[in-house]
Amino acid sequence: MADIVSLRHEADADAASHDGGGILRITLDNPPANLLSLEVMRDMQAGLDRARDDSAVRVVVIAAAGKMFCAGHDLKQMTARRADADGGRAYFEETFATCSRLMQSIVRHPKPVIAEVDGIATAAGCQLVASCDLAVASDHATFGVNGINVGLFCTTPGVALVRGLKPKHAMEMLLTGEMVDAAAAKEFGLVNRVVPREYLGQVVAKYARTIASKSPSTLALGKEAFYRQAEMGLADAYDYASRVMVENLLGGDAREGISAFIEKRKPEWKSE
Amino acid sequence: MADIVSLRHEADADAASHDGGGILRITLDNPPANLLSLEVMRDMQAGLDRARDDSAVRVVVIAAAGKMFCAGHDLKQMTARRADADGGRAYFEETFATCSRLMQSIVRHPKPVIAEVDGIATAAGCQLVASCDLAVASDHATFGVNGINVGLFCTTPGVALVRGLKPKHAMEMLLTGEMVDAAAAKEFGLVNRVVPREYLGQVVAKYARTIASKSPSTLALGKEAFYRQAEMGLADAYDYASRVMVENLLGGDAREGISAFIEKRKPEWKSE
Amino acid sequence: MADIVSLRHEADADAASHDGGGILRITLDNPPANLLSLEVMRDMQAGLDRARDDSAVRVVVIAAAGKMFCAGHDLKQMTARRADADGGRAYFEETFATCSRLMQSIVRHPKPVIAEVDGIATAAGCQLVASCDLAVASDHATFGVNGINVGLFCTTPGVALVRGLKPKHAMEMLLTGEMVDAAAAKEFGLVNRVVPREYLGQVVAKYARTIASKSPSTLALGKEAFYRQAEMGLADAYDYASRVMVENLLGGDAREGISAFIEKRKPEWKSE
Repeated sequence: MADIVSLRHEADADAASHDGGGILRITLDNPPANLLSLEVMRDMQAGLDRARDDSAVRVVVIAAAGKMFCAGHDLKQMTARRADADGGRAYFEETFATCSRLMQSIVRHPKPVIAEVDGIATAAGCQLVASCDLAVASDHATFGVNGINVGLFCTTPGVALVRGLKPKHAMEMLLTGEMVDAAAAKEFGLVNRVVPREYLGQVVAKYARTIASKSPSTLALGKEAFYRQAEMGLADAYDYASRVMVENLLGGDAREGISAFIEKRKPEWKSE
Repeated sequence: MADIVSLRHEADADAASHDGGGILRITLDNPPANLLSLEVMRDMQAGLDRARDDSAVRVVVIAAAGKMFCAGHDLKQMTARRADADGGRAYFEETFATCSRLMQSIVRHPKPVIAEVDGIATAAGCQLVASCDLAVASDHATFGVNGINVGLFCTTPGVALVRGLKPKHAMEMLLTGEMVDAAAAKEFGLVNRVVPREYLGQVVAKYARTIASKSPSTLALGKEAFYRQAEMGLADAYDYASRVMVENLLGGDAREGISAFIEKRKPEWKSE
Repeated sequence: MADIVSLRHEADADAASHDGGGILRITLDNPPANLLSLEVMRDMQAGLDRARDDSAVRVVVIAAAGKMFCAGHDLKQMTARRADADGGRAYFEETFATCSRLMQSIVRHPKPVIAEVDGIATAAGCQLVASCDLAVASDHATFGVNGINVGLFCTTPGVALVRGLKPKHAMEMLLTGEMVDAAAAKEFGLVNRVVPREYLGQVVAKYARTIASKSPSTLALGKEAFYRQAEMGLADAYDYASRVMVENLLGGDAREGISAFIEKRKPEWKSE
């Protein structure tokens, strides 16, 4: 049986480059809709956990096989569980606990995570894009949080949306359930860049390789601090961020990086 | 004496549609400036309260009669009360308590609220637009928070602005007191869409009818959860939003909506 | 020895205008890179403190001499202090405490602060732009938070960025370390306006003079309230902002401003 989520380390595109590959591609591989069934979410979680602990992974790309990116949860699977003794409550709770943990694992992941979106991303599929640090879309990508159409407001996707988009843009998507095209998604801040389909892989690879060339320990501490300070008041955020900068200078790859900069040579990161 | 705020249930544009009208239009009807005097704010509050409790209302549209949308508070009315024994303090406190309650009633309202803006919206009038879930402007609309020009910083409008706009855009409007056109308002995220004046009604009606066709109970729980989770940290927001999703699945219109989706038929919402 | 930070009160461009100059220009004057060494930050802090207490100053403009705006901290100065007995810890702590205090002094400053950017603004230089209330850039300006390139994540600049930009835009800059041009900076909300280099001074002067014509006490109370309420929940923000409005009406220049408005004459601000 084929994997519903595939993990693939990127072949090093440029074998001569000293930084090697370091890019892990997690592909939703359950077409056509690439639904986030409980099994798929667990496989993705396992992939993210492995990526967290694998020093060979420096950047994670989340992509999808086939014409759709991801159409969200598996409504048929969920409906079947209404026959459970508790009407499905335990199963629904497990579904959203698993999903919410997955989305937070992306935000809390020590490696930068990039969404590569070519096709439809709806509901939890759109939440997945919103939860990544960066997102690149092809001009064929479309986005929606359309649970309202079936009487199920996309409340958990809204958690990711309100932190990335302006509220009126998030509300327009949540209340109407309508799809927006890639250009609107870029205007809304849901994706960083829109490119012709045939260049999607190249542009994602460019972002991923650029980031993979940086100090892994610095990326990890910086990403963690970014999202943590975002939840603080200004004074607390500066106190915390200042402490992080000092530790970064004393303990991390900054000594090597700054020395290399001053000496006009390429840095050799110690951290993995 | 004519009403200074008029309430009108939209005639059902398409009598054959099963979802009926459901759109309540609250019109500021005190031209030319449609000032938010204490009386007008009380009438609007009464209209919003009635709309909250009236199951026939599914969407609220806030519009204005005449060439201006709303020029904010009634400065002459306020100035006259400086002659009060307390120099106007009690009256000013009542004015801003009433206004702040009104604006929060829009955010906390169980029905989506859409601003339809054709003309000038300044100070508390601009705050009114910012407080709505969605806003559509004609290309004749202009926006400003110009209290600074009379020595009265638009501090309460700033509450709505900073939650909807980027701080530099909000500050540009608040510090300079200058008007911005509809295109800038769209860029700033203050309005969702700008349309030629002659299409304004149609576009608002399109949004309103689309939203009015959704499950009312789902809209209510989803809207409440959206603004509540926005004020939480990420982990708390996900815990809360996950609970809301489960309740939505078990108790709301989601059973019918999802069944209809799986059976490829139109849902029949139970909730009103 | 020349000043590394120069303070200059703007000559009144229009001697006939009743509002006088009131614009203090703080210029980073340590080209080519205008690095934020500890000495420069202390001089800027002294300039901001003087501006705070000088009633002749109504608006502060932060600009830079030469082709670059500011390239951030002085990495050579910092590296030299690794030879200290504590490996530089005390010096690094002092650097980031000084820098964080400086950036917060801009946000907490009672006078509006405008960044005038012509050239490269990186790391703490970019943070400086993000920390100002308004920013105007020439079409030659570029922006980056490139510490990641030397293994030192721009964590403290991230505090300013996440409060002004959408997270995906901030993360793109922080993770890639790449520069963005002025047009992207405007799209991201980092600057308010981009103008041809030859008009930069005029456009900044127009903003500054417009703001300098407003009531100083109203600007001070409004700016403070804006950033304070932004950190509160909606209900608390409205309670607080309503109290500020009432005090503004009773104690500030609002009586004069509103009277002048009603009487169709120019206001004469009492506050300095």
